[in-house]
Amino acid sequence: MINFTKMHGLGNDFVVIDAINQQVALTPETIQLLSDRHFGIGFDQLLLVEKPVNANADFKYRIFNADGGEVAQCGNGARCFARFVRDKKLSAKDEIRVDTNSGQLLLRFDDDNLVTVDMGVPRHAPAQIPLLAEEESRFYTVLVNGTEKAFGAVSMGNPHAVIQVTDIKTAPVAELGKALESHAFFPERVNVGFMQVVDRQHIKLRVFERGAAETLACGSGACAAVVIGIEHNLLDHTVSVELPGGTLTVSWPGRDQPVLMTGPAISVFEGQIPL
Amino acid sequence: MINFTKMHGLGNDFVVIDAINQQVALTPETIQLLSDRHFGIGFDQLLLVEKPVNANADFKYRIFNADGGEVAQCGNGARCFARFVRDKKLSAKDEIRVDTNSGQLLLRFDDDNLVTVDMGVPRHAPAQIPLLAEEESRFYTVLVNGTEKAFGAVSMGNPHAVIQVTDIKTAPVAELGKALESHAFFPERVNVGFMQVVDRQHIKLRVFERGAAETLACGSGACAAVVIGIEHNLLDHTVSVELPGGTLTVSWPGRDQPVLMTGPAISVFEGQIPL
Repeated sequence: MINFTKMHGLGNDFVVIDAINQQVALTPETIQLLSDRHFGIGFDQLLLVEKPVNANADFKYRIFNADGGEVAQCGNGARCFARFVRDKKLSAKDEIRVDTNSGQLLLRFDDDNLVTVDMGVPRHAPAQIPLLAEEESRFYTVLVNGTEKAFGAVSMGNPHAVIQVTDIKTAPVAELGKALESHAFFPERVNVGFMQVVDRQHIKLRVFERGAAETLACGSGACAAVVIGIEHNLLDHTVSVELPGGTLTVSWPGRDQPVLMTGPAISVFEGQIPL
Repeated sequence: MINFTKMHGLGNDFVVIDAINQQVALTPETIQLLSDRHFGIGFDQLLLVEKPVNANADFKYRIFNADGGEVAQCGNGARCFARFVRDKKLSAKDEIRVDTNSGQLLLRFDDDNLVTVDMGVPRHAPAQIPLLAEEESRFYTVLVNGTEKAFGAVSMGNPHAVIQVTDIKTAPVAELGKALESHAFFPERVNVGFMQVVDRQHIKLRVFERGAAETLACGSGACAAVVIGIEHNLLDHTVSVELPGGTLTVSWPGRDQPVLMTGPAISVFEGQIPL
C-alpha cells in the first residue's frame, strides 16, 4: 500500500509520493493507469520526493507526465513539492534546494503559506528559445492566415511566445494558439500566452500549452509574460498574474537575473493505493 | 476528516462514503467542489451509505451527480455500493436490500466477486417510455436528416432507443445519438444505444447518454439493448454485453420479469478529506 497526497497549484493537479520512506517502483504503464481520472487516481503530473543526488541539496524532485514520461520542470508542481515536504515534516527549513533533471531549484516557504520558486534566468537569444530569426528582437512577426502577428518570445527552459491583447475574454486562444504553436518559425513548437495588461502591476493571462491546449495555469507562461511585459516597458518588476485557475506573483529584476514565482499550493486529500 | 473510497464499475467512477459511522453533511456546492477532477477528488457520482428507511431494508442508497443534484438510479453505482458495504464489513449478507429514492433494489454478491443488480421490470408502453406513438411496436421509425431510422424502444426507469448496427466501430454514435436524443418523438429525450449482435449470447454496445455524450458504460443501456434484442428474437435470455469500459452480463426471462445485470465493482483507493 502506497501513501500519497493529492494536491494542486491553481488547478494544475498532482499526486505527490514520499519515495524516501516508502519503497516506490513505478513503470510508465503504472503511471498511465494511476493518471486515469476514471480508472485510477487522476492527475496532470506525478511528483516523487527522493533523496538528493548532490550533497548540497535536500531532496530530488522528479516529475512524470500522465503518459508516464519523465519531464524536467513544472513550476506549479515545485510549489506543491515544497508544501508536501513541510506538511510531512520531511524538512523544517524555510528554504530548500532540490535536485531536478535540469539542475537545482530553490524553493522558499513564505509566512503566508505561499511558496516561491526560483524559475531560473530567462534566455532571449533566438537559438536558445529556439526560433528561426537571425537576431534577437523585442518583437517578432509571422504570417498566420495571411495576417501579420506580432509577439515577444523568451525561453523559461521551454519556449514561449507572448501576444498582447486588449481583452483576455475574447482572445482567439484556441485558433491562434494552435496556429502559432506549430508554426515553422518555432522548430520545437511553442507555448503561446495571451496577455492583457490591466496596469503596470497586474496582467490577465491565458496560455495555450505546447502539445496540449489551453490550461488552467501555466507557471512558466506567467513568468514569460512578465519578462516580456517588462522588456516592452509595460510592467513594473513585480506583477500579479491572473490566470484562469488563480493568481501568481512574478518578480524579475531584469536581464541575467532569475525570475521568482510565488503562489499557493493546496493539499486536497490523503490517499492509500495498493501498488 | 471524512473517510471515502474511490471505486468504479466499468470506468463509471464513484466516491463512496459511509454516512452511518461518520457524520456527513454535504451541500450541493460541496459536492460540486468534490467532483472537480483538478480541485477536488473527481467522480461521476457520489454515493452515500445511510441507514435504511424501511424495516425490511439493510441500507439506504443515495446518489448525487457531479452538479450536486440527487438522482434515483445508477446500476454501476449499485454494484460499487454492494461491494463497499461488504469490504467495510457493514454487512456480511450475500444479498442486500436497499432503499432508494425510486423504490427498493436487490443487490447480490456472487462467488466470483461480481455483483448482480435487479434492475426492475422493463416497460414497453409508449406512454411509459415516453414516446409519441399511438401503439406499442417492436420497431419505431423517425426521420433524421431526411432518412428513416428504425429502432426499438423501452424504459428501464429511463427511456432508451436501441439501433442495430453491423459494426460498432463505425456507428455514427455522436451524430445520430445527438439527433435522436433531442428528437420531438421523445418528449423527455432518450438514451440511444448502438448494438452490434455478435451472436445470440454476445453483443457489442455503445451508448449516447441523455444530456451527456457517449459514456464508457451505461448499465441501464446494456439492459435495454438486451431486452430489445430478445424482443426482436436476436438474442438468448442471458447475454454478454461488451461496452467500451468493460463487459456486463444481462439476463431477462421475458415480459413482466425483472432484468438482472451482473458485473464488476472495483475499489481503486482509500482517501481522507477534511470536510
